[in-house]
Amino acid sequence: MGAFITFLSDFGLQDEWVAVCKGVIFGISPEARIVDITHEIPPFDIKKGALAMASALPFMPRGVHLGVVDPGVGTRRRALVLEVEKGDYLVGPDNGLLIPAAWALDGIEKAVEITNEKYMLRPVCPTFHGRDVFAPVAAHLARGVDIAEFGPPVEVKTLEKAPWPESRIEGREIFAEVIDVDRFGTLRFNVARMDLTDRGVRPGGELCLISREKEFVFSFRTTFSEVKPGEALLLVDSSNLLSLAVNQGSAVKEFGLEIGEKVKLKF
Amino acid sequence: MGAFITFLSDFGLQDEWVAVCKGVIFGISPEARIVDITHEIPPFDIKKGALAMASALPFMPRGVHLGVVDPGVGTRRRALVLEVEKGDYLVGPDNGLLIPAAWALDGIEKAVEITNEKYMLRPVCPTFHGRDVFAPVAAHLARGVDIAEFGPPVEVKTLEKAPWPESRIEGREIFAEVIDVDRFGTLRFNVARMDLTDRGVRPGGELCLISREKEFVFSFRTTFSEVKPGEALLLVDSSNLLSLAVNQGSAVKEFGLEIGEKVKLKF
Amino acid sequence: MGAFITFLSDFGLQDEWVAVCKGVIFGISPEARIVDITHEIPPFDIKKGALAMASALPFMPRGVHLGVVDPGVGTRRRALVLEVEKGDYLVGPDNGLLIPAAWALDGIEKAVEITNEKYMLRPVCPTFHGRDVFAPVAAHLARGVDIAEFGPPVEVKTLEKAPWPESRIEGREIFAEVIDVDRFGTLRFNVARMDLTDRGVRPGGELCLISREKEFVFSFRTTFSEVKPGEALLLVDSSNLLSLAVNQGSAVKEFGLEIGEKVKLKF
Repeated sequence: MGAFITFLSDFGLQDEWVAVCKGVIFGISPEARIVDITHEIPPFDIKKGALAMASALPFMPRGVHLGVVDPGVGTRRRALVLEVEKGDYLVGPDNGLLIPAAWALDGIEKAVEITNEKYMLRPVCPTFHGRDVFAPVAAHLARGVDIAEFGPPVEVKTLEKAPWPESRIEGREIFAEVIDVDRFGTLRFNVARMDLTDRGVRPGGELCLISREKEFVFSFRTTFSEVKPGEALLLVDSSNLLSLAVNQGSAVKEFGLEIGEKVKLKF
Repeated sequence: MGAFITFLSDFGLQDEWVAVCKGVIFGISPEARIVDITHEIPPFDIKKGALAMASALPFMPRGVHLGVVDPGVGTRRRALVLEVEKGDYLVGPDNGLLIPAAWALDGIEKAVEITNEKYMLRPVCPTFHGRDVFAPVAAHLARGVDIAEFGPPVEVKTLEKAPWPESRIEGREIFAEVIDVDRFGTLRFNVARMDLTDRGVRPGGELCLISREKEFVFSFRTTFSEVKPGEALLLVDSSNLLSLAVNQGSAVKEFGLEIGEKVKLKF
Repeated sequence: MGAFITFLSDFGLQDEWVAVCKGVIFGISPEARIVDITHEIPPFDIKKGALAMASALPFMPRGVHLGVVDPGVGTRRRALVLEVEKGDYLVGPDNGLLIPAAWALDGIEKAVEITNEKYMLRPVCPTFHGRDVFAPVAAHLARGVDIAEFGPPVEVKTLEKAPWPESRIEGREIFAEVIDVDRFGTLRFNVARMDLTDRGVRPGGELCLISREKEFVFSFRTTFSEVKPGEALLLVDSSNLLSLAVNQGSAVKEFGLEIGEKVKLKF
């Protein structure tokens, strides 16, 4: 059985672009098994793409994860392979798209810039690196080609950051903002599990959230069911992001917060 | 080669929900082969979902059929596995969604309520049983886990009914209604093959249909081609539902009937 | 590992039609590997379908290519299998849909009309040849059934032509028109690579294009990168069609040409 390759893009399903990338993959790795994450990311919306990858990848079988939302195609932005702690590989542009997913998979182990033309479809079309660079590299990775083959190592600290503002920590306060609302009305903040555990904040206690000068105290728990239906809680979701949810309800309805809204957390 | 798992939902293709369920399936049954029926059922539209499953499943290879249109998720509605006469399994909520497909596959042999947490993704998110209950159970079934493992048997007569009014039979009359119009203009009634064969009504003769106080006599046939082009006929379609069609034409244009419209059939 | 079957249609992803065709294929050839090109071709738009097939198929692994955009279903239009020079097979209606893809795969080697009912799903529904004729024939081809089994040979010159006007060549002038604009703003003409190579016109020199009584001279090159960013060029694209592009820019913005617009090329 071939390796799994997951695939997310903003190509849409109306045109043949997604199929062309799959054809390239199967030409190199005929036994690969491709799982579409989604191809309906709004064009060039790196943030939506990053959130979808970060949400989906923790549930995916080990493999190669191809993400192509690439407004900088044709410019000097780097093309990347990231190896993550769990043993998966992420392939895509150096524009922040892959970073949240990498953290959701426990962080980056190695990063490489794709420069070796041997693994590209030549001539490389300057507007379609999905087909000519990322798809073939993903297929070669799926066949077992070593990450070092694709190009020189990249220092992790030089990578483009996640496509949302970083939260800022001062003393025992985190200055954060809402970066996403899911369809159940759960709010996600730009605060990773690590930002909390590094400071010894773990599920079990309480956190204070200040929004629009009002102060709320929420239980910080592992799962929804640790609070009563209708009760709000903070928890770290499957993308490793701190979230405000209401068990069997909608945090967005309850608290009226919007994407981009700034909050302060005290621990 | 792995078992087939077909998959229908109202999750849409924009978000990563469908992919997440597939990831869960491949995590349990890596060799499974997933065939999407459709994920564009309008949200919570059990009737559209039931019709699509009933129409598609008779053409699908034997396997496990996962259907998730689940407005009652988080309430006490049961989660089900149905074994049907043909040897396939249906997995989904007890809200009528699976019933028409079960009949199209010749009827329910066994029904079980999913209660065994061993086969769920824990903690079960109260709003996403697709991921945490139905997908893993489908994957375990595909691997050969016995239906009795998932929970206690359920009496078939206690299952939620098909998501449309039942037809009523009095003497030699059936009080029915139009429940669907397909894109070819064929009208489908809430009358199953069985309702007819139980009363000895079989293709070959004629049936009288009374609509808006007008009486029509139609040939009751097995296939379109048994009548001339342009001629109307009654037949049982691949979903096992009585249908009014026009050979190479449109019954809806010819007779002007709408979804919900009541008719009487005399045999 | 089973054979690849690519699949393009205008069925859309909302209904179960695509799934039903796949179910039929897997029923005949359970080990087949289906790759969707797209199913969102606008209903009955043979031209869009033909362009998508011609663009995608050169990147697909060798296999059977199923195309169903079929406004003439139920009429006397023929059902076809085409064998192309590269060893692939194309299956679909005789309405021009398959022709550009066949040329993009280096031309038709053999053509056969599908008449052998042994390889159809009977009774054949007059409105759904996708399910009852094309899908089963594609699946049988994928299993290795000889093309001659499906019906009598067809003379290539009797096949319906590509779904756009043919260009006309007089002396050293080609009377052509714009048949497509892709999302990068590249214009495609109804001029195949062969129309040029047959006259000794090969990349390397220059071509003169006359549009709206203005005369332009363009480099005729193999790839984008042979001209400077922002510079226009003519090239033959992956569908084997002559195209006007701007390196890292948009030809449609630069020159304002529209689909259907007539131009003259001098070589």
